[in-house]
Amino acid sequence: MKTLLTDFYQLTMAYGYFCSGMADHEAVFHLSFRHNPFQGGYTICAGIANVIEQVKKFRFDKSDIDYLKSLKTDNGKSIFNQAFLNYLQHLKLTVDIEAIPEGTVVFPHEPLIRVKGPLIQCQILETLLLNCINFPTLIATKASRICQAAQGEPVIEFGLRRAQGFDGGLSASRAAYIGGCVGTSNVLAGKYYHIPVMGTHAHSWVMTFDTEFNAFEHFANALPENGYFLVDTYHTLDGIKNAIKLNQKYKKLKGIRLDSGDLAYLSIQARKMLDKAGLKKVSIMASNDLDEHIIASLKQQKAKINVWGVGTKLATAYDQPALDGVYKLGAIKPQRGEWQYKLKLSEQNTKISIPGFLRARRYYNAQNIAVGDCIYDERQGITPHNFVTITDMSDPLHTKKIPAKYRYKELLQPIFKKGKCIYETPSIQTMRQNAANELKSFHPAIKRFLNPHIYPVGLDPALFELRLKLIYSLKHIQRER
Amino acid sequence: MKTLLTDFYQLTMAYGYFCSGMADHEAVFHLSFRHNPFQGGYTICAGIANVIEQVKKFRFDKSDIDYLKSLKTDNGKSIFNQAFLNYLQHLKLTVDIEAIPEGTVVFPHEPLIRVKGPLIQCQILETLLLNCINFPTLIATKASRICQAAQGEPVIEFGLRRAQGFDGGLSASRAAYIGGCVGTSNVLAGKYYHIPVMGTHAHSWVMTFDTEFNAFEHFANALPENGYFLVDTYHTLDGIKNAIKLNQKYKKLKGIRLDSGDLAYLSIQARKMLDKAGLKKVSIMASNDLDEHIIASLKQQKAKINVWGVGTKLATAYDQPALDGVYKLGAIKPQRGEWQYKLKLSEQNTKISIPGFLRARRYYNAQNIAVGDCIYDERQGITPHNFVTITDMSDPLHTKKIPAKYRYKELLQPIFKKGKCIYETPSIQTMRQNAANELKSFHPAIKRFLNPHIYPVGLDPALFELRLKLIYSLKHIQRER
Repeated sequence: MKTLLTDFYQLTMAYGYFCSGMADHEAVFHLSFRHNPFQGGYTICAGIANVIEQVKKFRFDKSDIDYLKSLKTDNGKSIFNQAFLNYLQHLKLTVDIEAIPEGTVVFPHEPLIRVKGPLIQCQILETLLLNCINFPTLIATKASRICQAAQGEPVIEFGLRRAQGFDGGLSASRAAYIGGCVGTSNVLAGKYYHIPVMGTHAHSWVMTFDTEFNAFEHFANALPENGYFLVDTYHTLDGIKNAIKLNQKYKKLKGIRLDSGDLAYLSIQARKMLDKAGLKKVSIMASNDLDEHIIASLKQQKAKINVWGVGTKLATAYDQPALDGVYKLGAIKPQRGEWQYKLKLSEQNTKISIPGFLRARRYYNAQNIAVGDCIYDERQGITPHNFVTITDMSDPLHTKKIPAKYRYKELLQPIFKKGKCIYETPSIQTMRQNAANELKSFHPAIKRFLNPHIYPVGLDPALFELRLKLIYSLKHIQRER
Repeated sequence: MKTLLTDFYQLTMAYGYFCSGMADHEAVFHLSFRHNPFQGGYTICAGIANVIEQVKKFRFDKSDIDYLKSLKTDNGKSIFNQAFLNYLQHLKLTVDIEAIPEGTVVFPHEPLIRVKGPLIQCQILETLLLNCINFPTLIATKASRICQAAQGEPVIEFGLRRAQGFDGGLSASRAAYIGGCVGTSNVLAGKYYHIPVMGTHAHSWVMTFDTEFNAFEHFANALPENGYFLVDTYHTLDGIKNAIKLNQKYKKLKGIRLDSGDLAYLSIQARKMLDKAGLKKVSIMASNDLDEHIIASLKQQKAKINVWGVGTKLATAYDQPALDGVYKLGAIKPQRGEWQYKLKLSEQNTKISIPGFLRARRYYNAQNIAVGDCIYDERQGITPHNFVTITDMSDPLHTKKIPAKYRYKELLQPIFKKGKCIYETPSIQTMRQNAANELKSFHPAIKRFLNPHIYPVGLDPALFELRLKLIYSLKHIQRER
């Protein structure tokens, strides 16, 4: 039960709303992120299955309530009163949740999730939703980038041993598969998520035998179809010779694995040795702190690697281990009152939130290439015109006009209606295929690593205007004080 | 059940050992890391409680076996035979495990965990042990560094929302507390691990009310003892005024929280405003992407912050999100045979493993300051002499002599004996105190961030000699081929 997997202030705020008679005010919140990770040009969203599982199970059980009851203020009083604890114990979620399906290409400021319902419920879900989405989205994106670098060659995720906790490993394996990996070394992820599991053997296997050749032979006898041998326990070129020698008898060599040293040089040598032995189809797998940049560099050096094992740098998103997802209030409606649009100010324009009931629509040209995403307020709709005009959040001069007749898709899909799940989660294979198809529908310039093209995402004119008015109004109010 | 939380190759190797009649060979493995994280001078070890919990529960249940049975080779045959699956299903761990207690200061190459027992069992635990230790050790160390920077002022861990998965968050909260934090925002971590939970309110709280003052007042009414207000939703200096104004009536203001903007400038202004209002004891808490370096810089700028909320950069160890822990074979003994010491070669000396049955001993001078750690082979013992000589693994000229009469402690403690837990896990408060006491017993120079002093850790002469001989012998064998 993960209901208490939340920040304490969600509960103090919930208590505050409860005490202020605002528990049943209606609210709408959006989850979004501010920057594509890894200085990249796109992001692959993931983690909705997590959200669905946790929201379905959401309830405060007796031990949770007992724990909350045990929390005291400095002067020894209970922090929460009994009425509130009773309220929590009987709380059933009745929120509407919309989300962008896993594997979809997404961009900064787009609502990945929208939650609408009683204020307390919306608020109390914040941390869980952020935890469920931030990390898988980060890893699916990292995996996608690594797979781009590998140019279609298989990438296997090997990161469990250095992952951040058990499900730091599990979620990473799942998200990496959605992002494009062909499999994982993580057996539990294989069992839970129906992902292919893969692996060779470790240095310790070789070390337990008297000679490397002896070790290879025993491995081949036990697992004749595995066919991969790690050749760098002692001396890599000798290891390759041993693998070739073994194959004279064994005939099932599929590949060798290099895990240290100069991978460019060694893979080229290995290729020559294997080819000379007539083993042109035998693969060369490499591992050892790989990421998209090292793979791209190895490709440039004409390394002869054609299977990529990527561990730590994928499973922890080493160069940027967190996505900057946020969850912001868009509007609120007192029980007897009208919807009020809400906004958080900041000195940086892009950190000022977007008010409203947000939706996002993606437009495609006749060649089925995505040309721009329009974020709009559902209650106002998209401003009717021959062209949909989208304006960069932070720059009114930065606009793009998209013919309104272009084909489009709504990015948010209904997931929960009044607390009930109405979404049929696709298979993980479908999500993975979705990510691959999505990427094909974007100009390649967004996928390059250095200075990627900035895909146009902007606000509909009505929403842009609304946001601006609220900013002015709030600044005005604040200035007058 | 986390038994399948392992790399697939652990199972293929186990199968290989099983088929080769080597299942019951005895082995000894060590878990260690190669570099202090964050370019620091020390590491705080953590995660043993995880190990204990998982090892106690370790068994392959029916669904695990069914899953393994379902795995096929490319030609459609089962990868594992029924005899092996039966073996796994009935496998009970009988290993001896020793470990360094949580909260202990540790250094590269020291055995944090030693596992001795049947080869298959030792091998099959590798990934789990690494996953259990790598991340908590990383985070306890990060927290310790952040607390050093805060110079004894309270540091609260706020990282759940951007943590790497559910127990990426949970383990981080626990390890951060061991490392020195005073509490966490993570309620579930509070419940599970008996850590104080803390929190204020979010911007959304302020936004749901018509005015900031109104929002503060409602919060104070509901939670009179909480006493912390977030002042930067609209305009920080106005927010501080509102908090002061509220306190004229409320009288229980404990602190304000700054979450954006120029924290040095704003905290100095806030201090002035609070002091002028006679609120000298009211705290100023800051959050917003803090880490040890930013805190140190704020201290240098005379920022008037005295409570520190640290989130993403602590919970993900942002600047180095993985510890480079490894698990290496030290020796092996066939069923009818002698112990054979084992070693993995590498082109880099520090990546060559240490053979033997390792233990580590820490020596203290008369002032109770730690002066050096000696890694030695338990079967050979420490070379008897008036001085214990320790030699840097990679440099025979780099030695230190420690008077043998100095007080010492053995770092490894017995945890499991023949598969049975014989260790009484101390409370988390004891572990936290252990970390604080340990740090006091080291020269401050190891704690500085820039070019820390390298604490002397080395091999006993007999072990150094043994390792060298094995290196030469293996290089020789390889060269002769």
